[in-house]
Amino acid sequence: MKSTITPIRRDDAGHVVMLDQRLLPFEEVYLTFESGEAVAQGIRDMVIRGAPAIGVAAAMGLALGARRLAAEGFGAAFAALCDVMAASRPTAVNLFWAIDRMKALVEAHVGDHASLLDALDAEAERVYAEDIAICQAIGGHGAPLVPEEATVLTHCNTGGLATAGWGTALGVVRSAVAAGKRVAVFADETRPYLQGSRLTAWECLKDGIDVTVLADGAAGFLLASGRIDLAIVGADRIARNGDTANKIGTYMVATLCARHGVPFYIAAPTSTVDLQIPDGAAIPIEERPAEEVTGVFGKPIAPIGVKAFNPSFDVTPAELIAGIVTEHGVARAPYEESLPALVELGARVV
Amino acid sequence: MKSTITPIRRDDAGHVVMLDQRLLPFEEVYLTFESGEAVAQGIRDMVIRGAPAIGVAAAMGLALGARRLAAEGFGAAFAALCDVMAASRPTAVNLFWAIDRMKALVEAHVGDHASLLDALDAEAERVYAEDIAICQAIGGHGAPLVPEEATVLTHCNTGGLATAGWGTALGVVRSAVAAGKRVAVFADETRPYLQGSRLTAWECLKDGIDVTVLADGAAGFLLASGRIDLAIVGADRIARNGDTANKIGTYMVATLCARHGVPFYIAAPTSTVDLQIPDGAAIPIEERPAEEVTGVFGKPIAPIGVKAFNPSFDVTPAELIAGIVTEHGVARAPYEESLPALVELGARVV
Repeated sequence: MKSTITPIRRDDAGHVVMLDQRLLPFEEVYLTFESGEAVAQGIRDMVIRGAPAIGVAAAMGLALGARRLAAEGFGAAFAALCDVMAASRPTAVNLFWAIDRMKALVEAHVGDHASLLDALDAEAERVYAEDIAICQAIGGHGAPLVPEEATVLTHCNTGGLATAGWGTALGVVRSAVAAGKRVAVFADETRPYLQGSRLTAWECLKDGIDVTVLADGAAGFLLASGRIDLAIVGADRIARNGDTANKIGTYMVATLCARHGVPFYIAAPTSTVDLQIPDGAAIPIEERPAEEVTGVFGKPIAPIGVKAFNPSFDVTPAELIAGIVTEHGVARAPYEESLPALVELGARVV
Repeated sequence: MKSTITPIRRDDAGHVVMLDQRLLPFEEVYLTFESGEAVAQGIRDMVIRGAPAIGVAAAMGLALGARRLAAEGFGAAFAALCDVMAASRPTAVNLFWAIDRMKALVEAHVGDHASLLDALDAEAERVYAEDIAICQAIGGHGAPLVPEEATVLTHCNTGGLATAGWGTALGVVRSAVAAGKRVAVFADETRPYLQGSRLTAWECLKDGIDVTVLADGAAGFLLASGRIDLAIVGADRIARNGDTANKIGTYMVATLCARHGVPFYIAAPTSTVDLQIPDGAAIPIEERPAEEVTGVFGKPIAPIGVKAFNPSFDVTPAELIAGIVTEHGVARAPYEESLPALVELGARVV
């Protein structure tokens, strides 16, 4: 099985080409971004979303932006561009991880501007290729968790569109399907941004995976019905103790899974694990504009001027998580021990 | 404090005039229904919704329809009209309760057609007036549960629009505000039909009640934040043991309330209690068309042709419910004892 999804790539000029996910599932439009600042704005505007895809976009954007900066004063100008990039979405740790990788090269190439630019380009390519390899490794570790015939609940989009092309949680489904398993996906629509009904449904249909959408509030009833074998979602940031920030609504799914004895898994690259953060309480949670809640595709659905509460993420406590599937294996509780071990394993492999 | 909401009334010709809730919050259009079948279709099409309002509409529709039937063969024709009415929405018990009240009059007036028609008219008026009195009594019993300064989470619309004009769960808020309490309401938008953002927000703004809307998936994060003092919702049917069917998503709210120690209340008239049903497993759950999930106001939000799971209600187990506020008082666990006692009290009062 192949994924047919190409959410981000670089063209011959080094410009960053992104599939405009805001127009899916109705239009498949690719936008070209010609500066690092434009890429940052694209991330902020959610042309692309999903923590791994954001990391790839940031790396490509910094490589592109670096070519526009003068050799003189490069360090300060590049740092400023990194700050712009870092301010685009505050929760996704892959963003900061990608920025740090690019920054490290600047230090390693002081005084050799041309080779630095080439190194930044190569690093952006590496972040991209690694993401695909990592997702397929996550799929390989996660697929054995999926029964031969399975009904899987997921939330938000964690597929090819959220990554360089394969997916994390939906990548596990892809890998299970590729292994010949019969998998039906129930996709929470994921208000307010509708990543489930717009994106997960779109890419499942595109790749021939059986998919059914539901309102987020219907997940509890579905879980109570006994039809779900497992739930699997992605992550925007995982604290050292396993507490996981993911798309708003995830915590409710996890709580209902626990109530009904349905295993609830996270699938994410180890780059999503932030060992500096002891637990979920320390993860910053982005609040987004009221308009996302009071409208759909720009059409109002609530009285003009009504207040809205719009946190973009919530935190699922580690106690509700049956396992965290990474490219190096499946971490199990106690996560304080298993997560650092997997991250270290990754550091040794690289 | 007065409610300014008039969702349903009869005009001088006995026609049924309903505020078209499908157009709210943007247009305030009143539709006139000139036959019993038209009223049934209006209920089915969700011109009006909310179990108490549906009961009032059914009674008014049957009184109207009866005037069109010939005296000869009236019994069979009226029974057929009752069947049409009963088939409009399968979960709301008030519908069947209102139909049964009207049917009982037919038996009581055999052989006296003119007085039967007047009795049906009078009964429809009584169902209407009782509903307002009942809601205000619910408000009176519920208001003491609300702190002097309170932040209240609710789901769906249980206000004036769901009843003859005051509300059940939102009626409790109205009564608390009328008693001088400072109440802020957080209203789940309530996908797929958006009763929260469209209707609850609209009537709160109209009556000057502080309101903030949120995506259904954000309720868990909100409850985890500690900002909510209590949650209160309505009911479509309450089983003898206290298990409660209400708008899809309610069960998830109740589960998260339990996790965070936030009291979760039901507010409903005793007509919503179905003592014949032992527990929630026996409550029939309506499934509605996929288009409600795959679109918003008729605009598609998911790929064309994708499957959708769209149960209209879920069942909250009694163990998650801190109290059931009725017009005769607040039932507490064990509900097997408290609910029949309150229903019987009501029977004696009438």
